[in-house]
Amino acid sequence: MRLGLDVFGGDFAPDATIKGAILARKELSKEHAIVLLGDKEIIEAKLSQEGQPISAFDIIHCPDTIGMGEHPAKAFMKKPNSSIGVGFQLLKENELDAFASAGNSGAMLAGCMLSIKPVHGVIRPTITSVLPRLDGSVGIILDVGTNIDCKPDVLYQFGILGSQYAKYIHQIENPKVGLINIGEEEEKGNLTSQAAHVQMRDSKEFNFIGNVEGRDIFDNKVDVIVCDGFTGNIILKQAEAFYSLIKKRGIQDSYFDRFNYELYGGTPVLGVNSNVIIGHGISSPLAIKNMINLAREVADVKLASKIREAFQ
Amino acid sequence: MRLGLDVFGGDFAPDATIKGAILARKELSKEHAIVLLGDKEIIEAKLSQEGQPISAFDIIHCPDTIGMGEHPAKAFMKKPNSSIGVGFQLLKENELDAFASAGNSGAMLAGCMLSIKPVHGVIRPTITSVLPRLDGSVGIILDVGTNIDCKPDVLYQFGILGSQYAKYIHQIENPKVGLINIGEEEEKGNLTSQAAHVQMRDSKEFNFIGNVEGRDIFDNKVDVIVCDGFTGNIILKQAEAFYSLIKKRGIQDSYFDRFNYELYGGTPVLGVNSNVIIGHGISSPLAIKNMINLAREVADVKLASKIREAFQ
Repeated sequence: MRLGLDVFGGDFAPDATIKGAILARKELSKEHAIVLLGDKEIIEAKLSQEGQPISAFDIIHCPDTIGMGEHPAKAFMKKPNSSIGVGFQLLKENELDAFASAGNSGAMLAGCMLSIKPVHGVIRPTITSVLPRLDGSVGIILDVGTNIDCKPDVLYQFGILGSQYAKYIHQIENPKVGLINIGEEEEKGNLTSQAAHVQMRDSKEFNFIGNVEGRDIFDNKVDVIVCDGFTGNIILKQAEAFYSLIKKRGIQDSYFDRFNYELYGGTPVLGVNSNVIIGHGISSPLAIKNMINLAREVADVKLASKIREAFQ
Repeated sequence: MRLGLDVFGGDFAPDATIKGAILARKELSKEHAIVLLGDKEIIEAKLSQEGQPISAFDIIHCPDTIGMGEHPAKAFMKKPNSSIGVGFQLLKENELDAFASAGNSGAMLAGCMLSIKPVHGVIRPTITSVLPRLDGSVGIILDVGTNIDCKPDVLYQFGILGSQYAKYIHQIENPKVGLINIGEEEEKGNLTSQAAHVQMRDSKEFNFIGNVEGRDIFDNKVDVIVCDGFTGNIILKQAEAFYSLIKKRGIQDSYFDRFNYELYGGTPVLGVNSNVIIGHGISSPLAIKNMINLAREVADVKLASKIREAFQ
């Protein structure tokens, strides 16, 4: 398995990405090659600085970089020799089994849409977040910010996409899919959620358990929470706000510690033809390590192929 | 001031309501009469049971009750002699300065729309919740579940309504109004929030500070968070979920203790012609006491009149 890492993606790149790659290298087996994409000279210098043998990694020189503030689609089109541009080219040629970046997430999504393209039948690829639960497991929520206004059939497909992710990456058999809403009854909610409920109710493609509410977000009654990217993004950031409040109050607690984004490394882009991982812009070395681990997991189970099969 | 209480409203009525009224009576001055609405015989029996002089309260006999599960508007129309029906009649006749109930909230809203009616110019009356902040103050969020799909001009008006509430009840001068969104830039968000931002941006009727995100919900940068009732209800219930998790983890913390709904007693209905308070269905005696206190506050400052003036 060849796991590509955008060394120049993220607020603290390339230091954090190189350090994260070194941490990941120690954990991965020899079957998993870490492919570092970026300016070769800088990468080699950083590796030496960290006392690491250059031979532990594959390095692919990319002379260009897409900055965090650049216009995503324009930058992706204009910079084929950027680390993100080269990453997608290699994915497309099957020279990588997964490609991960904590860089310009819009450019990563542009690469998904313009280069490797959505899986045939998927209306809108999506991104996710994990929800820590009291029993040590996690739930999944999607979308969390890519698809803002969603039609009911898009929400329906999130049920399929989230189920595949929950099953193959989080080992949840027959995941329970819930639609976020403001009441359990099917007539509750805004016009979109009412229509989505009707579509999801009779699904044979996933295990729909009905509407779920804000109070159920961290509950084991639901494994995959479906919502539009507007609602999901607000839920995700409210959870971050709570985690921040817990830290500010000086509370140490093993459950709430699991709200630390660094532990999860990011999200796969679900519904595109290769395995792509998007990490948090502020990724630390630990977050980068876990992003590479997530890349390994989705590559090992061939998540993108599994999703393609689900839509055949 | 005459403060009406629906003694037969709430999951634990009439025990919790009578006990809450007794607690409130001890705190209120003589200028504030508590008017108990419900079956007189039962009310008097409960007061005796609690060792309270009946003369401490005004009692208005209402032979009927609207149950928690009844269809709100139908029940309100068909049961004029219910405690809720009589409460609104007395409000309309200016025999009460405020009316509070933890009962069927839909029936309370039906009373607002059908009996005392919205303030002229208010498109959609709304309900709120408070957001505890680290410095001991609270922010306001509205709507939290009454107006599910909101047009931009409705969201705009929530800025006025929330500002009045924040100013007169929470003593926040020139409250900072923010629109919930998924990014700070004005082009961010769903179609409704983009359009609402444009309307709110140039408002001279409130102090608009721009978009706020999920991470800002408990932050002092914003005093009044405007959102549709779908988003607001999910935010509110997610906050309840967090409070529940904190309790389940056995964490004692003076800040997080302020997420206890009992401390706030409910929400005024903003934008109707009299002072109406809706409490939580599960209200305990403490919550009922604070609901009566909130009724006293809105009656003292004449909140409904202040809002009427703002819309003139």
